[in-house]
Amino acid sequence: MQNRKKIAIVGVGLIGGSLALQLHEKKLSSKLIGVEVSANNARDALDEELVDEIKPFDDAIKEAEVIILTTPVNTLSKLVPEVLDKIDNQIVIDLGSTKYDIIKSINGHPKRGRYVATHPMWGTEFSGPKAAVRGAFEGKAVILCNKEESDSDALGWVEKMYNKIGMRITYMDAKAHDLHVAYVSHISHITSFALANTVLEKERVESAIFEIASAGFESTVRLAKSNSSMWVPIFLQNKENILDVLKEHIAQLSKFKECIENEDAHHLKALIIDANKIKRILK
Amino acid sequence: MQNRKKIAIVGVGLIGGSLALQLHEKKLSSKLIGVEVSANNARDALDEELVDEIKPFDDAIKEAEVIILTTPVNTLSKLVPEVLDKIDNQIVIDLGSTKYDIIKSINGHPKRGRYVATHPMWGTEFSGPKAAVRGAFEGKAVILCNKEESDSDALGWVEKMYNKIGMRITYMDAKAHDLHVAYVSHISHITSFALANTVLEKERVESAIFEIASAGFESTVRLAKSNSSMWVPIFLQNKENILDVLKEHIAQLSKFKECIENEDAHHLKALIIDANKIKRILK
Repeated sequence: MQNRKKIAIVGVGLIGGSLALQLHEKKLSSKLIGVEVSANNARDALDEELVDEIKPFDDAIKEAEVIILTTPVNTLSKLVPEVLDKIDNQIVIDLGSTKYDIIKSINGHPKRGRYVATHPMWGTEFSGPKAAVRGAFEGKAVILCNKEESDSDALGWVEKMYNKIGMRITYMDAKAHDLHVAYVSHISHITSFALANTVLEKERVESAIFEIASAGFESTVRLAKSNSSMWVPIFLQNKENILDVLKEHIAQLSKFKECIENEDAHHLKALIIDANKIKRILK
Repeated sequence: MQNRKKIAIVGVGLIGGSLALQLHEKKLSSKLIGVEVSANNARDALDEELVDEIKPFDDAIKEAEVIILTTPVNTLSKLVPEVLDKIDNQIVIDLGSTKYDIIKSINGHPKRGRYVATHPMWGTEFSGPKAAVRGAFEGKAVILCNKEESDSDALGWVEKMYNKIGMRITYMDAKAHDLHVAYVSHISHITSFALANTVLEKERVESAIFEIASAGFESTVRLAKSNSSMWVPIFLQNKENILDVLKEHIAQLSKFKECIENEDAHHLKALIIDANKIKRILK
């Protein structure tokens, strides 16, 4: 990949900002143009030197050769068709955590081929331009969905971009993607939010939590710091899959509850040994 | 603290072994005697040089000036009275994750004063002597329970021990201890075990999980690798408190479920903003 491209990033927060740092670092961009609806975020993105300039939406799209959308997923399913209406031959990418609804929104669009659906499996519990991280995404997985619907030059550039950043590319159908991420990402956020609410609800003497909370607790509750603007749209857009996993999770918790109520050490041990099998998957 | 002591550690696994490393490192021990029911653990504890020698239970208790019990909590409520029956004037400490039942088991015992009930808030999801960690416990909290029931010399030595290791001491009544740890430690393990079972149950194509699982998932499910021999007794011994928290947790998850079912973005946002308050407690 010799020629760098002019790249517009729509939504310069944690994800867009971290990607901007990588695009510059890996010499993928000749210019980075930010688009931001929030004046604070726009100022922070410039202060942190994540982008070279902030421009209005239409101007950025006109100037850029690649347009990267990193807004919350509810915005994306309106924004992707809108951007495709406006482009000529540019490449359009989104990084949203759900894919089925977004792809459906541009089914049959004359510019469908210019768009590549991606989901890099990286994030933190923080948000905004100041949360952007240098070296983000490296060594993680990225999922590309419905690649046969993208033009080969657009797909090729996006594959090269993620390769240069150091991500492992996996290909999936959008429907399979939304199902898989419900299991390995979305449910973790719900359990973490619910655990935070459980503890905050039950434990009135907060200083006691603060004093004795261990690393294990911090680990399971860390994601509860995550931003509602990002996660409410994800939960609603991936409703059916998430409800499926959530019902199963409540059923699994109920098994623990029953074993403890009945003081059934034998069955409790079996449940834990089953759970230990996660070792095969996570080292 | 000038004079080092001969210390027996009953149960040289993750906790006992990590403590042994610290007792030597901080010059608290003149000799470390291990007691192990498992021949494999005994051999590993010697191979890893966690203790100087392995001795039978009675010999170790006779020789040691301080006896530290780090077995699972169901064993502790039998072992603590048994050790108090056998000692002369030694100091006896346990490191179990529950306290009420253990302390109750020696209520009124003539040697009650020689015993100090402690719970250092540190551990990992691994177990056995080979999992022992150098520098463990440092910077973490340790809870000392019902300190007024311990002789002042015994309490004083234990306080000095934990101070030297670099732990922050908190004092609690045993009943309050068991309630607090149900919130900030025990429930995290149950949610993690149940989450692992949810994902393993639902996701048949394991390679897909392995490929795309993100750091967030690893964080919430890490504790699911924890050992059943340690955790079954904890869940049963702290039954009432854990059931209390677990019921509340299932109720909190059900709130998320209802909001998603009803596509109630407003209430879902409120739940997440509530959960975000955990930021005040965990930085």
